[in-house]
Amino acid sequence: MSDTHNTAKTRVVGVDGVMYAYRRLGAATGTPVIFLQHFRGGLDNWDPNVTDGLAKDRPVILFNNAGVASSGGEPADTVMGMARHVTAFLDALGLKRVDLLGFSLGGFVAQQVALESPHLIRRVILAGTGPQGGEGMDKFTPKVTEHATREKPILEDFLYLFFSQSETSQAAGRAFWERRHSRLDQDVPSSAAAMAAQGNAIAAWGVVPEMDRYASLRRIEQPVLVVNGTDDIMVPTINSFILQQNIPNATLVIYPDSGHGAIFQYPELFVSHARLFLDGERHGH
Amino acid sequence: MSDTHNTAKTRVVGVDGVMYAYRRLGAATGTPVIFLQHFRGGLDNWDPNVTDGLAKDRPVILFNNAGVASSGGEPADTVMGMARHVTAFLDALGLKRVDLLGFSLGGFVAQQVALESPHLIRRVILAGTGPQGGEGMDKFTPKVTEHATREKPILEDFLYLFFSQSETSQAAGRAFWERRHSRLDQDVPSSAAAMAAQGNAIAAWGVVPEMDRYASLRRIEQPVLVVNGTDDIMVPTINSFILQQNIPNATLVIYPDSGHGAIFQYPELFVSHARLFLDGERHGH
Repeated sequence: MSDTHNTAKTRVVGVDGVMYAYRRLGAATGTPVIFLQHFRGGLDNWDPNVTDGLAKDRPVILFNNAGVASSGGEPADTVMGMARHVTAFLDALGLKRVDLLGFSLGGFVAQQVALESPHLIRRVILAGTGPQGGEGMDKFTPKVTEHATREKPILEDFLYLFFSQSETSQAAGRAFWERRHSRLDQDVPSSAAAMAAQGNAIAAWGVVPEMDRYASLRRIEQPVLVVNGTDDIMVPTINSFILQQNIPNATLVIYPDSGHGAIFQYPELFVSHARLFLDGERHGH
Repeated sequence: MSDTHNTAKTRVVGVDGVMYAYRRLGAATGTPVIFLQHFRGGLDNWDPNVTDGLAKDRPVILFNNAGVASSGGEPADTVMGMARHVTAFLDALGLKRVDLLGFSLGGFVAQQVALESPHLIRRVILAGTGPQGGEGMDKFTPKVTEHATREKPILEDFLYLFFSQSETSQAAGRAFWERRHSRLDQDVPSSAAAMAAQGNAIAAWGVVPEMDRYASLRRIEQPVLVVNGTDDIMVPTINSFILQQNIPNATLVIYPDSGHGAIFQYPELFVSHARLFLDGERHGH
């Protein structure tokens, strides 16, 4: 029996004094998919229907960056710093070639790792995310900020930030919330220091550069799948189109009646799309 | 044995003196998918890998609008006129509820039918197409016009108009060309009169309205799947994003390194995406 979302032990691996927390589940063989999490999120902010769905025929590894939730160490305050922790972690586990699934802030980090370490990364899934200096990524509405920075996040925050306001989407949000709490030993919340460091990284990533906007996207060599909801109020959905248009080998999927957390609203459909992408020959070069 | 792309007989059905040419293939039961073709295209401009792929578990019906290729009658010179022929044809076949797959001009027609006859249409796939008055749909480059209006279209026209200029895409274009010619009794070419009438319909559809741009999209009730290539030089790809953003229940898929004819470049992947869409419960309301 392979481990599942709810049975996989939380493990730690130490590099240069940083104890990274992670979980490994699913198949023993195949290219592992490393999950990189959103602002403040830890190992239990993922949807078991997504993690177990992808883990059916490949290893899935959930990872907390340094200083985030149950990981030790100082939280990095730049996307580049977070990317370095990812490669240190992969090295510590002896992983030579993996796929990345980066959600939101995790998607910023995934882009950076893919760019800096093309030999390590086979394919990349970018969910609810955007390019460095994208459209409308340098500011948030007061209501988004209020929900995103609540000391102890509650259901209503996720319903507002991750889902559309339709009845269907809100119901999907509540179902996600139940699924993500189905594991008994939940990861600890991230600290205020982690929130502050990540906030700085997000603010810097959002700054529109004076020239060569999106130039780094054109240097991403891996096949990429970009997914989002139709109206993401955290990272505006147009950024998913921009990612697709500028990354040389990128496929885009946008889901209806949904927001930032579309992959948690349509977990089965997303897993189907992700598997077609990860397993497809046509996407490779 | 059910009929396939290459064995299905070309049939005709008459309504008000117009003899519509069509072919029916695939499964005997299930919601039929009606294929609506591009500018000048006839029954043999489809990709057998797409038609047979979708026909595995549902009926597929290829249709020539009035005056197009082997259909009789006067070619309509408005999208609305073409939509009326579609509903007349459905009525003649006794079809009460179908799915539509509209490619390019066929996608304009599919939108119009979905809007005017919501009771007839269950779901819609829009490929390489755009909304009425979309972005850059009111003009074509001289080179596009030259290739699109050649008296007898040749391989090079399709390689330029439907595929990207990469080696991979061009090779996929040649493979498509072979597949689409694999049937022995090919449909006849469309007349110059059909080209002229369709050209007028396309020009009128491309005009940007002075107000309420995209208002009609917001009245489309059906679940819609929008697909295109990353750089469509006939109907700019941004229009696929616009369709997705304005149709209330629409999913978007954009393929890498491809153009207007992306569904012929990635036929198996497109069929997988189309089946997930057509069969999915989550898309329905």
